[in-house]
Amino acid sequence: MHKIITVSRQFGSGGREFGKRLAEKLGYAYYDQEIIKEIAKRTKLSQAYISRMSERKPLFSYPIHIGLSFSSLDSYNLDQSAEIIKQQYTILNEAAERSSCLIVGRAADYLLRDYQPFRIFIYADLASKIARCQKREKEAELSENELKKKIRLIDKNRAAYYKYLTDQKWGEITNYDLCLNTSRFAIKDLVEAVALILRMQSEQ
Amino acid sequence: MHKIITVSRQFGSGGREFGKRLAEKLGYAYYDQEIIKEIAKRTKLSQAYISRMSERKPLFSYPIHIGLSFSSLDSYNLDQSAEIIKQQYTILNEAAERSSCLIVGRAADYLLRDYQPFRIFIYADLASKIARCQKREKEAELSENELKKKIRLIDKNRAAYYKYLTDQKWGEITNYDLCLNTSRFAIKDLVEAVALILRMQSEQ
Repeated sequence: MHKIITVSRQFGSGGREFGKRLAEKLGYAYYDQEIIKEIAKRTKLSQAYISRMSERKPLFSYPIHIGLSFSSLDSYNLDQSAEIIKQQYTILNEAAERSSCLIVGRAADYLLRDYQPFRIFIYADLASKIARCQKREKEAELSENELKKKIRLIDKNRAAYYKYLTDQKWGEITNYDLCLNTSRFAIKDLVEAVALILRMQSEQ
Repeated sequence: MHKIITVSRQFGSGGREFGKRLAEKLGYAYYDQEIIKEIAKRTKLSQAYISRMSERKPLFSYPIHIGLSFSSLDSYNLDQSAEIIKQQYTILNEAAERSSCLIVGRAADYLLRDYQPFRIFIYADLASKIARCQKREKEAELSENELKKKIRLIDKNRAAYYKYLTDQKWGEITNYDLCLNTSRFAIKDLVEAVALILRMQSEQ
């Protein structure tokens, strides 16, 4: 069976860089924005709209029992939120079937649980997250207070989305195999150590 | 400054073995039962009594502002719980001053926060914890249900004690630098990888 690694990450923690570097090191396929692009292609919705919907609690109110049966949803008049989630689930499963891969976000730790992924959660102290954001072009113009608000809001939305899909708490240790605080490290160094951990697991 | 590592651990997760092996690998002093023994010596209380008190919410009800001033407590008619906590705090600080060390439990991650310890939390899935306990002489005669109850009770007490001393949630990622689920690993392998992580940190 292919090896699947999922990386969940707090905004500003360096989780995306970590995921990208780890996938490169291991020679695994890497999925992040690629999932959004593929959903956009299949649903004819814009990437921006899907990104927004993918990090918020969906707007519909009937329950989705993920992992039980998505096909039963066909009998509903699916709205766009449900369609996005359905495609996301399908695309993640296709990726897992195709090759060993690393997936950032998208509640992949839960949606791909039948593959027993190695589930990593990347986080950092608030000061460290602010410092990291300030180095990015996109957030460079924001004040410290604005950054704090942005960090809190995005993570709140991620947590709500995860809760909705999984009925689990985002960032709670029991949902992961490894949780890493990046505040005191260079991301590239952590990648080396985590690659070693993963090798040890496969030798068991 | 000396390097301080703290290891908090769920009951049955292999955290004590992990701590002992990591301390050996790094050549650090190792403190676990040693703290209890030293408290017993200084308070003239039995080790069994102190162990029990050290993993429960203390029985007294007035507030202790740890880290502000323990000396102010002298004006109280200290009961045994408070005396144990005071000695624990003193002994931990003495250990941190003496040499680089690794401390298991005792809310050392919080009590020694001025030393910026590297804070590790070791946990495991319930099935893995039960399997580990079943291999121990002490718990070998317990049924699976009895073991489940024991695991839950001990961790509940540890969480309550930690909450009381620190006003923080035990096992919540933000209180740690690294959280490791031991379910899919041999403890000795994890020690190798964590030693590598620690080396990377010190090179920063």
